[in-house]
Amino acid sequence: MKVAKLVGSRFKERPADCVIDSHALMVRGGYMKNVGNGIYSEFPLLKRITAKIENIIRQEMDAIDGQEVLFPVVLPAELWDESGRYDSVGSELLRFTDRSDSRMVLAMTHEEAAVHLVREYAQSYTKYPFMIYQLQRKFRDEARPRAGMIRVREFTMKDAYSFHTSQEDLEQYYRKCYKAYNRIFQRAGIPDVVTVASDSGMMGGSISHEYMLLTPVGEDSIVLCESCDYRANMEAAENKMQNDVSGEPVSLECVETPDCKTIEDVCRFLGADIQSSCKAVVYQKNSDDTFVVAFVRGDYEVNETKLRNLVGEEIHTAEITDASILVAGYIGPYGISDRAEYYLDVTLRGIPNLVAGANKEGCHYKGLNLERDLENARYVDISKIQQGSICPCCGRKTITIRRGIEVGNIFQLGTKYTKTMGMTYTDENGKQQYPVMGCYGIGVGRLAASICEAYHDEYGPVWPITIAPWEVQICCLRADDAETKAVADSLYCDLQNAGTEVLYDDREGVRPGAMFSDADLFGVPVRVVVSPRNLKEGCVEITTRDKSVKELVAVEQAVRSIQEIKEKLYAQIAQKVEPYEEG
Amino acid sequence: MKVAKLVGSRFKERPADCVIDSHALMVRGGYMKNVGNGIYSEFPLLKRITAKIENIIRQEMDAIDGQEVLFPVVLPAELWDESGRYDSVGSELLRFTDRSDSRMVLAMTHEEAAVHLVREYAQSYTKYPFMIYQLQRKFRDEARPRAGMIRVREFTMKDAYSFHTSQEDLEQYYRKCYKAYNRIFQRAGIPDVVTVASDSGMMGGSISHEYMLLTPVGEDSIVLCESCDYRANMEAAENKMQNDVSGEPVSLECVETPDCKTIEDVCRFLGADIQSSCKAVVYQKNSDDTFVVAFVRGDYEVNETKLRNLVGEEIHTAEITDASILVAGYIGPYGISDRAEYYLDVTLRGIPNLVAGANKEGCHYKGLNLERDLENARYVDISKIQQGSICPCCGRKTITIRRGIEVGNIFQLGTKYTKTMGMTYTDENGKQQYPVMGCYGIGVGRLAASICEAYHDEYGPVWPITIAPWEVQICCLRADDAETKAVADSLYCDLQNAGTEVLYDDREGVRPGAMFSDADLFGVPVRVVVSPRNLKEGCVEITTRDKSVKELVAVEQAVRSIQEIKEKLYAQIAQKVEPYEEG
Repeated sequence: MKVAKLVGSRFKERPADCVIDSHALMVRGGYMKNVGNGIYSEFPLLKRITAKIENIIRQEMDAIDGQEVLFPVVLPAELWDESGRYDSVGSELLRFTDRSDSRMVLAMTHEEAAVHLVREYAQSYTKYPFMIYQLQRKFRDEARPRAGMIRVREFTMKDAYSFHTSQEDLEQYYRKCYKAYNRIFQRAGIPDVVTVASDSGMMGGSISHEYMLLTPVGEDSIVLCESCDYRANMEAAENKMQNDVSGEPVSLECVETPDCKTIEDVCRFLGADIQSSCKAVVYQKNSDDTFVVAFVRGDYEVNETKLRNLVGEEIHTAEITDASILVAGYIGPYGISDRAEYYLDVTLRGIPNLVAGANKEGCHYKGLNLERDLENARYVDISKIQQGSICPCCGRKTITIRRGIEVGNIFQLGTKYTKTMGMTYTDENGKQQYPVMGCYGIGVGRLAASICEAYHDEYGPVWPITIAPWEVQICCLRADDAETKAVADSLYCDLQNAGTEVLYDDREGVRPGAMFSDADLFGVPVRVVVSPRNLKEGCVEITTRDKSVKELVAVEQAVRSIQEIKEKLYAQIAQKVEPYEEG
Repeated sequence: MKVAKLVGSRFKERPADCVIDSHALMVRGGYMKNVGNGIYSEFPLLKRITAKIENIIRQEMDAIDGQEVLFPVVLPAELWDESGRYDSVGSELLRFTDRSDSRMVLAMTHEEAAVHLVREYAQSYTKYPFMIYQLQRKFRDEARPRAGMIRVREFTMKDAYSFHTSQEDLEQYYRKCYKAYNRIFQRAGIPDVVTVASDSGMMGGSISHEYMLLTPVGEDSIVLCESCDYRANMEAAENKMQNDVSGEPVSLECVETPDCKTIEDVCRFLGADIQSSCKAVVYQKNSDDTFVVAFVRGDYEVNETKLRNLVGEEIHTAEITDASILVAGYIGPYGISDRAEYYLDVTLRGIPNLVAGANKEGCHYKGLNLERDLENARYVDISKIQQGSICPCCGRKTITIRRGIEVGNIFQLGTKYTKTMGMTYTDENGKQQYPVMGCYGIGVGRLAASICEAYHDEYGPVWPITIAPWEVQICCLRADDAETKAVADSLYCDLQNAGTEVLYDDREGVRPGAMFSDADLFGVPVRVVVSPRNLKEGCVEITTRDKSVKELVAVEQAVRSIQEIKEKLYAQIAQKVEPYEEG
């Protein structure tokens, strides 16, 4: 492919709406174009990358006995009624009606479609286990798409669904898929992805893992222990607390705290320590708008995922009006029990003499001792773990919080979908059973963007050779010079004949600086510069985009040298790929 | 792949809702499953076929300098506002709003998205010509999905868009693409697809062609001349008429025709020839419901596409009530001009003494001579050409009507989209110009089904080897017999090592009849039967699904023989593929 013919524009200025580098570089390099909120078209540059990623994914899915299928993007709502998700999933599920007023949805995931496809097929235990997967578009009506391809509304996803006759069989396959995922990321050039235990959220099931690329611009918080192997998504991380419970309880006293609206205001006004304060965060149930109050220590945040799991249904941040039975700014646990459902977080356990709202305009309590003053004070874990917290695994105070991008996830779904959708099989004893499911996802565009985020410099992406749009780029400086052009042309031809993917820049009248800027944006791993100056010495210059190689090579040796460098780059990636499991 | 592990069920009974063979066989064989009205999932069997078709398409698009891109399925309505199609396209365009009440559409075609992608890129004449294409899902909210994958609502389509600086350049590229399409169908095993001139419909533009697979179950009518090369879609075929104008005109007379509601009734009642009758077909404009009356000779049908193009806007079949100014059953051209817009078809030209409605309840005219009795009688072509009609090209009465499935189409769009969407480039003289566009589509699933329709017997599809799910199938009869199993196993292994795609049926306890029925439904081109009986002679049996080969081969020769037969099948297809054009 010649650069002069490549569809897509490149430009210098960082677009104002790009908050992360990969997004800015992929827009500046002509990889993608925004079509609407969270919706993009892919230029040929990006399409070549995603096609290579898809190819790696297919090979690894096939290697663990996956069979490729294809589900529709548009699904009848009835399927989602069966699983119960038509009602339970929020507005990220796009619902609409067709011309005959039938209710439809845009599939954001395909568990229902997978069960629908195989429930007649897999009625005997002899058909199990099996796994089907697809590469298909998904639409999730995200409230806040951001960061380019990282969080979009429409995207290509590889989603896989496995079916088993026992939890043990699922777990065995889950481990196989876990390793296949490792290989996918290793082959795509990001071997340092970490896996974390995660909350299964709306997917149902219990055990699940996310594959996280650690990067400061990631939108997920990841909890790591520096002493042991503990890793978890913030949403799933247990918060172990050890409070200082040594103080002597004093008596409960209601005091006026005028104009103190936040817990910080109150502590300042009363001269209290924030660690001895009780903060209220108020939610409402989506179903009936009744209040749910979460109490945490003043210096902690509520982990809404844990709270949601505890409440057992969807909740949202409350709107408290003057007419509400709750007094905004003055909500506390003492005296709340007849006004709202409430939960005390473990961060409050045993703390003597808390400061807390008095459920009365302009008033707080001092000297609140929960175990003493409340009937049946029980604590639950609904707070976010913090830097330096106690590791739930090894018990040391070595928790650290990092940012990451989720590049893949795997779930043990159990029988959630097979039960609700009435999929059964006959076991060896002639009894009807529900199959156990697993599901496994990778967003293709997000993975491409994440790799760019992991490997770039200020000038452009540094693509790993396994997924690079081309393996080699030739820059012909002075294409108007006949000899230079002839050498570059024949190199272009010889490399292609040798089976190498080549991008060729033979544009006339483009200055070397501009040509190199473009090349940096293309991020092709091996670059060959053919110029009159080097040709005087009978040489061309070969460099790598990662700057590890820079050498002058005789023209006659060029093809061989380029092939060698190319092979070396492939080998560097291959040696970090874990081998297939035996058996 | 082992049959025992292949996801998908097979069964014997023809499903009641399948009107064409390919649909019935592909459901019976476990290729696809209906998810909703006109919406299907693809099992691994079909996915393997569509993947091969997509691969052929990609290679041919790349060979004519196409660059693969990807547009979203969900598009903001604003893009379709720009082109005017948000309003002009009917309810097959699915419109909806997202969570923030933004108007969106499900893309049924991507001209708008294509212009959007490249309008900043292609601002200079030096960038032209170029072509971008994608393989992507489309959704068309068809009123009547039918015939399995032939007419669905959601489907995978290859759509390509080319951009040019002149009509001549477009035409040159159009010819290249025309040939690339021929090659695609030839490589996919259906070399006998014919091209017909077609009406461009909602796509705009003028010249366009459809690629038609001739088959009695096709839903399109195709007009062919048996004397010359003339071929056209019924919608686009010009109806040349030569009426018998020899009769002597008599005077106009209004007669009572009680209870004669159809033109046949009237002719019978009056003893008139149907070829001397004038039939009225009434429509209404979608915009304001005003009437449009089409008059054709009694034995002809109205070609609604031609009428629609003439009227210049969307029309629908009229509902005539008692309150209408038109008298249902008695509508005629004499005296209609002040009641409705009307058109006289060429089938009526010069006919003496017509029978026609009198626009009065229970009455018709006899002796109507249009040129004599009407002011300014003008004729237009709004009728459907018939078997035996005059060829618009060679003038002989050798027109024949055939049925076909449209497997592809190509359009010269002109500047319809670039003008409405404000895409311009600077030409060599510094002037702003609108690029000229072409677009080129192939439905992947429909092509697969059409090939099945073209090649099947009562037992199953007979897939061409280039798109077959596997190249070879091994049937091991008596897998419980150790020697038989060992031979079959090693054949499975050896063939795979030789680079052959093999489907292996080693199910125990399946009777030969059932195994062969399944094999017929799989339609794999080469079949190898390993059985104790043949092994006694040291042989296996090799047959082809098309029954052209049936031979016993020594076990040691089997791999070589199978490879040879395979190569021969590929060669048979290759020899019907036209070569690339020079230059």
